Amino acid sequence: MTETVAPPHPFDTAVGLTPLTAGLSTGETNPAYNNMVGPFGGVTAATLLESVLKHPERLGDPLSLTVNFAGPITEGAFEISARPVRTNRSTQHWSIELSQDGTVATTATAVFGTRRETWSSTEITMPEVPSAENVALLPFPEFIAWAQNYEMRFVEGAIPDLESGEHPDSTTTLWVRDQPARALDFTSLTALCDVFFPRVFLRRGKMAPAGTVSMTIYFHADAQTLTAQADNSVLGTARTQRFGNGYFDQSAEIWGSDGALLATTHQLVYFKD
Amino acid sequence: MTETVAPPHPFDTAVGLTPLTAGLSTGETNPAYNNMVGPFGGVTAATLLESVLKHPERLGDPLSLTVNFAGPITEGAFEISARPVRTNRSTQHWSIELSQDGTVATTATAVFGTRRETWSSTEITMPEVPSAENVALLPFPEFIAWAQNYEMRFVEGAIPDLESGEHPDSTTTLWVRDQPARALDFTSLTALCDVFFPRVFLRRGKMAPAGTVSMTIYFHADAQTLTAQADNSVLGTARTQRFGNGYFDQSAEIWGSDGALLATTHQLVYFKD
Repeated sequence: MTETVAPPHPFDTAVGLTPLTAGLSTGETNPAYNNMVGPFGGVTAATLLESVLKHPERLGDPLSLTVNFAGPITEGAFEISARPVRTNRSTQHWSIELSQDGTVATTATAVFGTRRETWSSTEITMPEVPSAENVALLPFPEFIAWAQNYEMRFVEGAIPDLESGEHPDSTTTLWVRDQPARALDFTSLTALCDVFFPRVFLRRGKMAPAGTVSMTIYFHADAQTLTAQADNSVLGTARTQRFGNGYFDQSAEIWGSDGALLATTHQLVYFKD
Repeated sequence: MTETVAPPHPFDTAVGLTPLTAGLSTGETNPAYNNMVGPFGGVTAATLLESVLKHPERLGDPLSLTVNFAGPITEGAFEISARPVRTNRSTQHWSIELSQDGTVATTATAVFGTRRETWSSTEITMPEVPSAENVALLPFPEFIAWAQNYEMRFVEGAIPDLESGEHPDSTTTLWVRDQPARALDFTSLTALCDVFFPRVFLRRGKMAPAGTVSMTIYFHADAQTLTAQADNSVLGTARTQRFGNGYFDQSAEIWGSDGALLATTHQLVYFKD
């Protein structure tokens, strides 16, 4: 009798780390999650979070994460150092760096903590949209490797084609999940927060160099809420407040299929005309 | 004939640093900018930014700043280390730590850079409000020291009094400037991004322990735009997306008196019931 073991999900392969010492681990870029230049930022952010999640001194679950894309990550091996800067009774603050050959490519800070039940209220409302199965699947251009690992169903603001022309606003709303389907956890939620193509493409109706400079995630969901979400699609909606002088911001929300607000996330993005 | 030298503005005293070496400086908490417990977070954030602005290797102007309030700052001296982690052609990434007696109290990352003219568009619109001089000045309770250094004119969502009761939403919009008036710069804009009292006070109509855990600022204004603003009031507007399990987020915009979007800013805040 032979046992069959399912191969790991491509996402788990991409964010996998090998611990060297407590706080130091190595990983490798994964071509399946490449962007046009270098790896998809969402997977880099998820890998940095993973380095804390796997740290033996980690306290609780992620509350916030800020990732700064300081320089290009080249294909191949990298090293991540994750340092618990301060541990309090219910929160823990982390400083994280990803390096290649001794050069820092990405920095991050994270706040982890234990949650307790309190009064709660979601003040914003989920966009009114058809359910995921009633929205057409839109394949992404094949040369964008990472996007092949996501099932995207655009409700508004799909990626423009060559004839699109300018768009009146920068809002994209889509149902999205890993492809093949994978149960949601903090690591995959982190990557999903970066799933929106650059807002300037949509507004201007054309592609041009653009890349995230800094990205912040506030996690509203606890582990139980993520478990309930299972492998259903989440609804993401993103927009820009201002474009100007080579940079634009982006704010987005990620909603669970049952209407729970899972995360709010913000970026500063570099762009060229 | 005697020369009279104007005393420094209280804000400049509060954020003032004494350099020890390149990247290491000392400062002192200032009782005039105290919050209920410890210093006003906005002044702490501004002081961290100041440590980069005064660093001899600094490139360009602030693009983004994230500050993590890891633990309490006690009254007295502190030390700030600011390290340029990576310097590119037009951007520079910083890691910053504030310590007291060898214990880290605050961490931060910042992105600085040189800007160049590009296509620009502000997609959100400034709230329609009366001009600052047509909105009544509202004095803050005297026991909140830092607020005495700001001239606040609330358009909506003023700080609740004991009889306020619950509020339908968490939005506050106010005209605000330093008191006495002071020309706006990146340092004072940073502090102004934290000028909103905790949103949970407004929603629930009562005070309870609350404090910022992590705060991010995206600077949309360049130095020229700040100079044009001079010492006029800026319009700040802030709201929460979700309160729950001991934390809430806050997103805010800071507008110049002439309608230019100066900064967008986000926070994760701890609260008790």
